[in-house]
Parts: sequence; C-alpha cells; structure tokens
Amino acid sequence: MTKVVFDISISVDGFLAGPNASLEEPLGAGGEALHEWAFATKRFREQHGLDGGEEGVESDLVDERLQATGATLMGRRMFSGGTGAWDDDPNGDGWWGDDPPFHHSVFVLTHHPREPLVKQGGTTFVFVTDGIEAALAQARKAAGGKDVLIAGGADVIQQYLQAGLVDEFQLHVAPLLLGAGVPLFAPALEAPLRVEPTRVVDSPAAAHLGYRVR
Amino acid sequence: MTKVVFDISISVDGFLAGPNASLEEPLGAGGEALHEWAFATKRFREQHGLDGGEEGVESDLVDERLQATGATLMGRRMFSGGTGAWDDDPNGDGWWGDDPPFHHSVFVLTHHPREPLVKQGGTTFVFVTDGIEAALAQARKAAGGKDVLIAGGADVIQQYLQAGLVDEFQLHVAPLLLGAGVPLFAPALEAPLRVEPTRVVDSPAAAHLGYRVR
Repeated sequence: MTKVVFDISISVDGFLAGPNASLEEPLGAGGEALHEWAFATKRFREQHGLDGGEEGVESDLVDERLQATGATLMGRRMFSGGTGAWDDDPNGDGWWGDDPPFHHSVFVLTHHPREPLVKQGGTTFVFVTDGIEAALAQARKAAGGKDVLIAGGADVIQQYLQAGLVDEFQLHVAPLLLGAGVPLFAPALEAPLRVEPTRVVDSPAAAHLGYRVR
Repeated sequence: MTKVVFDISISVDGFLAGPNASLEEPLGAGGEALHEWAFATKRFREQHGLDGGEEGVESDLVDERLQATGATLMGRRMFSGGTGAWDDDPNGDGWWGDDPPFHHSVFVLTHHPREPLVKQGGTTFVFVTDGIEAALAQARKAAGGKDVLIAGGADVIQQYLQAGLVDEFQLHVAPLLLGAGVPLFAPALEAPLRVEPTRVVDSPAAAHLGYRVR
C-alpha cells in the first residue's frame, strides 16, 4: 500500500530553507541548522557515507523514513538549483554527487525533457515534463509498494497538497526562528483541511509531528 | 520575576486566524477551529462564565496560563476589530463584553489616546499611544511579578519578537491546515534566532510546544 508523504525539517516560524539559496548554500542562509537533528544521527550519516553519529530516537526516525521510501519526487530546483534549459544549467547533473543518498528512482518535475540520469548506488533521476499527477503515477510504480516521498521544494509540496494527493506528512520542527526564507506552507488551500495527528516524538533537537491527511 | 510571553493557537500551516476577520467572525473564516482544544476544557469555559468542559492536561494548560498572567498586552484590532479614531469605531468598547475574561489590566496599543475603560470583574483596558516599550513598561508594573502576556495580533507579537523583548512562548498547534489567513510569523527577524525547547505536551486536540527565547 503505497502512501504519498512528505517529511521535512522546518523552523518554528515555518521556513524549510533560509533566504538566498545558492549553489554554495543550497539550504539558504541559516538553513543548515534546520537539519542539525538529522546530521547528528548515525543513520543519516551512514546514508551519506559518513562515520559517527548518535543512535537513538532520532536515528530511528531517519531509518524509518529511509526504509519506508521506495521512490522520491522533487522539483527541478531541488535537483540542481537551476531553471530553464538544461544546457544553460551550470549544475545540470544536480548537486547530489556521484552516489546520491536516495538509492532508488527520483522523479524530477521539469519543463525541459531529458533522458534519465543513472548514478551510482541505485539512484536514477527521471525527468518528468507532463505534470505532478504523471510524475506521481510513475513514482508509484517505481515505489514497489513502499512510500512515495515528496522531497520538496515548498512549491512542489504545496501543489501535491492542493491537489489532494498527500496521504501523510511529518514535520521536524527545529528549535529556531529563521526569520526569513522559504515558507513550507503558503496561502494555498481553498478551504481548511483537517488532519489527524498520528504521533509526536519530542527531543531537545526537534519536535517531530506526524499527521494523516486522508 | 515577570516574564514576557506569548501563548497562542495556530494551524499546522502557521495561521493564528482565518481570512476575512469581521465583527461577526473575529477569528476569520475557519479560525475558531484553532481554539477547539481550549473551548473544550473546563478551565477555559469557567473563565468565560460557561458550564461544562473537560478536565485533564489541556484544562491544566489553560489554568497554568491564567494563573501565571498578571497583565495582558494587545493591539487595537484585537481589542475592537477597528482602526482609526475611536469615534468612528463601530465597536469602540471592544468585543470582549461587559465582563471580559482577563480580570486584570489589559494594555491596548493604539495611535489614538483615550481614557482607561473599566469593565466588570477586574478588567481595565488601558490605551497606550507611545509604543511597544512604553506599553510593556506599564504592563510589567501592573503584572505584580506575574507574566505579561502578549495576546496578539500577529503584528504585535512580531514587533515584540523583533525588539528582543519576548522571554518565552508556547504554540498550540491545532490539527488542521487553514490554507489562508493571518500568519503568526512573518519574515520579520534580521537574523536566525535559536530558541530552547522547554516542553512538548501532546494530545489529539493539539500539540503544545513551549520555547524559551532568552
């Protein structure tokens, strides 16, 4: 039973990235601090080929998400930071390195067609030009019964929410106010949407709030 | 030791009120749902002269806030919904009734001078025209060692945050996306601000997140 989910770190004031994202600072000014809780875990570091890190409840949360995810969806900017024609994108192969941390198919929403990009470790970036529903249909197939994770950015998450296609989400609220940046949510829904809290996992590093949408 | 605090219900997408607030619907379209967790408690209902309600952890949270607060600060719109000269305000005596639920001094930030308005039950509205710091100084004196609660609206809370005058805050995150409305936070700070989580109280009706700012 594939679920469509997003699972994202935000500041207390609701930003998922700081202002002025760039190739050098993809999470924007101050944005890395949102992910400190994850960076500190053994499971996250392992997934990114790094030693060390702590075991415990937050490492388990990272592990749970990684285990549950069979395919990932993301926007073009999250893939490379760029826009427009691929030939003009200075970072056209993406900023995820030769061995990206996904190890499954990643569907990239773009207006510019392109052949799939096969990386090491089982990650293939597939470029989808016919919209969010088509991308989700492909991702569902690729997920093999596991979850489809909508990785971001905010505009992509908002589009799937608006379209009523999200089943569950989890927010990792980092203990800081960013003060500026990219808000996860925008005034995007036409009517209020009740959600069902599924759990709260509390730690000094972040408050982890789970919700079921439908 | 007076603390300066705010303590407010928001949606998962960060709105403290729905869109199109009016005299008939001061919390905006859909905004009342943010406060369902509180409306359901015995302590909240008692404070508002109503019977019934449930005891338990959320009633205790309401009680804790009421007990701790010695003075309240609010913006003009939160007092009456109006703006401009008092003579032109159709709701110039406020929408809090003859026996408002504060039972202490409430300092209203306004550009329009006015004598204090004494209500039943110990609530006096004092109108302050010389800015947020002057209002806070008056509220501190009136609080008698208890907390000063910045009740709202969002712009008032943001001004106190920006000025570095908030000691602690608590967010009651109601399980719904409002989709539109008045955001609690705006891109208002000049730099990221780390906060210290003090506790999380979790219930099906809301996730209650406490933070210390300084």
